[in-house]
Amino acid sequence: MTNEPDFIALLRNIARDPAARGLDDDAAVWNIGYQTLVLAHDSMVEGVHFLSDDPPQDIAWKLVAVNFSDLAAKGAIPLACLTSYSLSGDPEWDRRFATGLGQALQHYGAILLGGDTVSQPSGDARCLGLTAIGRSTVPVPPARNGAIAGDFLYVTGAIGNGWAGLQRLRGGHHNPDHLISAYRRPVALINEGRALAQVAHAMMDISDGLLIDAKRMADASRLHVRIELDKVPLSPEFADVIGITRQTRLAAATGGDDYQLLFAADPLAHLPIAAHKVGKFSAGQGLSLYEAGESVPLPDNLGWLHNG
Amino acid sequence: MTNEPDFIALLRNIARDPAARGLDDDAAVWNIGYQTLVLAHDSMVEGVHFLSDDPPQDIAWKLVAVNFSDLAAKGAIPLACLTSYSLSGDPEWDRRFATGLGQALQHYGAILLGGDTVSQPSGDARCLGLTAIGRSTVPVPPARNGAIAGDFLYVTGAIGNGWAGLQRLRGGHHNPDHLISAYRRPVALINEGRALAQVAHAMMDISDGLLIDAKRMADASRLHVRIELDKVPLSPEFADVIGITRQTRLAAATGGDDYQLLFAADPLAHLPIAAHKVGKFSAGQGLSLYEAGESVPLPDNLGWLHNG
Repeated sequence: MTNEPDFIALLRNIARDPAARGLDDDAAVWNIGYQTLVLAHDSMVEGVHFLSDDPPQDIAWKLVAVNFSDLAAKGAIPLACLTSYSLSGDPEWDRRFATGLGQALQHYGAILLGGDTVSQPSGDARCLGLTAIGRSTVPVPPARNGAIAGDFLYVTGAIGNGWAGLQRLRGGHHNPDHLISAYRRPVALINEGRALAQVAHAMMDISDGLLIDAKRMADASRLHVRIELDKVPLSPEFADVIGITRQTRLAAATGGDDYQLLFAADPLAHLPIAAHKVGKFSAGQGLSLYEAGESVPLPDNLGWLHNG
Repeated sequence: MTNEPDFIALLRNIARDPAARGLDDDAAVWNIGYQTLVLAHDSMVEGVHFLSDDPPQDIAWKLVAVNFSDLAAKGAIPLACLTSYSLSGDPEWDRRFATGLGQALQHYGAILLGGDTVSQPSGDARCLGLTAIGRSTVPVPPARNGAIAGDFLYVTGAIGNGWAGLQRLRGGHHNPDHLISAYRRPVALINEGRALAQVAHAMMDISDGLLIDAKRMADASRLHVRIELDKVPLSPEFADVIGITRQTRLAAATGGDDYQLLFAADPLAHLPIAAHKVGKFSAGQGLSLYEAGESVPLPDNLGWLHNG
């Protein structure tokens, strides 16, 4: 079985243009025609990235949001997209998907340029893709690898809501509450990303889990990162439904589907928006985890490794 | 069962920006930052757009070529792409796919910007996608809908080779000959498209079949098109292996996978490259077919309707 990192290592030999950023980043940064475009493509597979019985409007919404979240993490404004759509076999389902797609693009003020519609064999897990194109608002968008020893690590908001929403759905709850909405209708933090791109040394969105994504930022920056588990912000809804223990803190920090921005900034930097300090970079390598000053063993899985 | 035209009609309500060209064209034409970019996304599904036992290098090559062919039809030069790749579960297969991708991008001088790698459930038909981005070489790239009554309809080269190659493969032939190569390793006609974009009133590539694609051009241009079946160029290899009868001419003209350019031009236009006149546009609507001056009944299927 090939895994994703092995295949990306193969592609890295092809993607040698600086615009590809060594395939280490969430998005490409491409200078073309006196503009800096930021481009990302994420696919979603049924049963992996969304549930078969998720509302089609929400699936379309999420497809847009997860891609635009990659743009947000580079401080870019979404301009346009192309979609790869697999017909469902159900006209009403397709109609509702198109409705959700239109809502999401209107929300972000981005245009649909085109794409492709295919039919997969009946019964196959559906595969949906979107290429997002945005315009950078800064000369050099923050990369993953720009953290500096001494930088603080911040997140923009509550972690674990998407994971908790997925647990709710798996547990048979279907009334869309705050947590379920976080899973099904995440929001790309465009304005936050744009503001933070002015000060962040490194930035990415949290899609696979806070711990794994923080480790990726540390690895790319060739630094060590220490995370204070008790400083990871959890929502009142999370506290209410899931409860707060070390185990649930770890679940939140490894569950993924957050789409909060994770960034490194100088301790003295004036942050343009409120953010939560969750850790600190230092010389060295790897990730260490603390709770109330005491070392916490790392969980086996630092994030949701769904090859996505 | 929703069909592709119904779904595209839904998307047309969303894709209202002129850059999307009403989703009637093979590619979007987007003015951004003093450049005119041309963008296309085509996906390929295993068993529909390629065969499970096609060599992985060739599948990667074809994924690039079919997308760059859409750029060629707008007179654009390929610059960059993003891919959506589904891991095969076989490291050697993935390695060979990456090799073919690198070969194709080197052939066209385009860069890989990024993309996504996902895992589909084991046994599902694999779904591969590519977003192609090119730079227009003309101020307004030729659309599908620009044909004028009186224009001649031309193709750039032999039709039916890809279809014939597919028949060869289905018949158990596997030594890559000229026809099988046409199916597995089509070539996007970048230079030809660039030259023709100077004179063509309308242009598109033939992916689904000459007859259906000519009818699409006529419909978009609100004209009638008459095609002379005996003028459709067939290769010596096609003649040799498939033979030339009315039936095989019809098969060639409806088989698809040609990636020749189909264009409308003024009868007096000086064509910058050699091309084959196969028909003529006139006031009216629909497609009519003639052979040696006699009307030929239209086949039930004008092309390969694979929702692709």
